[in-house]
Amino acid sequence: MLTLYGSTTSGNCYKPRLLLAKLGRNFRHVEVSTVDGGTRTADYLAKNPNGKVPLLELEDGRLLAESNAILMHLSEGTRYLPADAYERALCYQWLFFEQYSHEPQIAVRRSLVVYPHLAAFATAERMAALLEGGSKALAVMEDRLAKAPFFAGETLSVADIALYAYTHDAGTAGFDLARFPFVSAWLSRVAADEGHVEIGWKPA
Amino acid sequence: MLTLYGSTTSGNCYKPRLLLAKLGRNFRHVEVSTVDGGTRTADYLAKNPNGKVPLLELEDGRLLAESNAILMHLSEGTRYLPADAYERALCYQWLFFEQYSHEPQIAVRRSLVVYPHLAAFATAERMAALLEGGSKALAVMEDRLAKAPFFAGETLSVADIALYAYTHDAGTAGFDLARFPFVSAWLSRVAADEGHVEIGWKPA
Repeated sequence: MLTLYGSTTSGNCYKPRLLLAKLGRNFRHVEVSTVDGGTRTADYLAKNPNGKVPLLELEDGRLLAESNAILMHLSEGTRYLPADAYERALCYQWLFFEQYSHEPQIAVRRSLVVYPHLAAFATAERMAALLEGGSKALAVMEDRLAKAPFFAGETLSVADIALYAYTHDAGTAGFDLARFPFVSAWLSRVAADEGHVEIGWKPA
Repeated sequence: MLTLYGSTTSGNCYKPRLLLAKLGRNFRHVEVSTVDGGTRTADYLAKNPNGKVPLLELEDGRLLAESNAILMHLSEGTRYLPADAYERALCYQWLFFEQYSHEPQIAVRRSLVVYPHLAAFATAERMAALLEGGSKALAVMEDRLAKAPFFAGETLSVADIALYAYTHDAGTAGFDLARFPFVSAWLSRVAADEGHVEIGWKPA
């Protein structure tokens, strides 16, 4: 059986859980969090020297890090990775956009709001810069979603799963989603799609 | 013919040029840079609303952003994307590592050293944090390269091309590559691989 190491409150860790739920694939959840030092133990660093979650352990014990790489690997050959080469390329594009232009703004701002031990880093200057950067990312998403229902085109792909993870909770991070009607409508479409689960979900 | 919009001094723009050179594929280079405002013009933002380079324009005019997405798209079906599913997954893992844990430290520090208009942002505190973060990324690479000649395994893939782009010039950014002998030996292997071109190369 697959084993997924990760935290039930992290958006990055939510991504593979959401995909596995939609695929109907069984897996074992092992709670590991950056908050309590779980990603810095010698045992965990032996599994992932970069000290991050999520981490996927395959049936044969081989390991795979990086949330969006896990999405790519698990979606190959499924409906969640487009068969058309250009739509697949757009899927790649939005996955990298998510990790470079979106997550470091919106997820980081959320972490500064949510986790008390990070409050000292939430200076007014930094919070303003993250608000500006994250709003720019949402505007880029709004532009795309004015032209297509999903990021890669007509159907939901792993790009939508990756971008949903932190966008759906951007209000907590201090972003006004009402300013982005196409993004808001897309959030509803993703949440209504078959097999959807919420961020805290894990297998029984 | 393919058109590639980008800067001849940017490591992110070097990545697709290096892959296209190795593939022997002809393309048109259009110089666009973040430094002179070229990525902020209305014409360019219509092509890439995220205002970044590189950007690939396909023969039929369709567009693809994000350096590592361009690498993925152009490498499909070639020797630079592993045929084995797990090696391909590792390739994805290192591409996302590059954009999340490596480029925002090493490339950003390089830009603060190299570009005079950014000098005001190069505070002592920020430069120290970037040196620490980038050194950690190099240590994660060192750990991997102690176990395999290339990031995805036995052969050079787009993961190596992506990580080469800014690692080969990490000295300019202030990193001491002599501390990372496996990384240094890998840099030499990549530079010696068939069809290699240097960062400033563009088609005649």
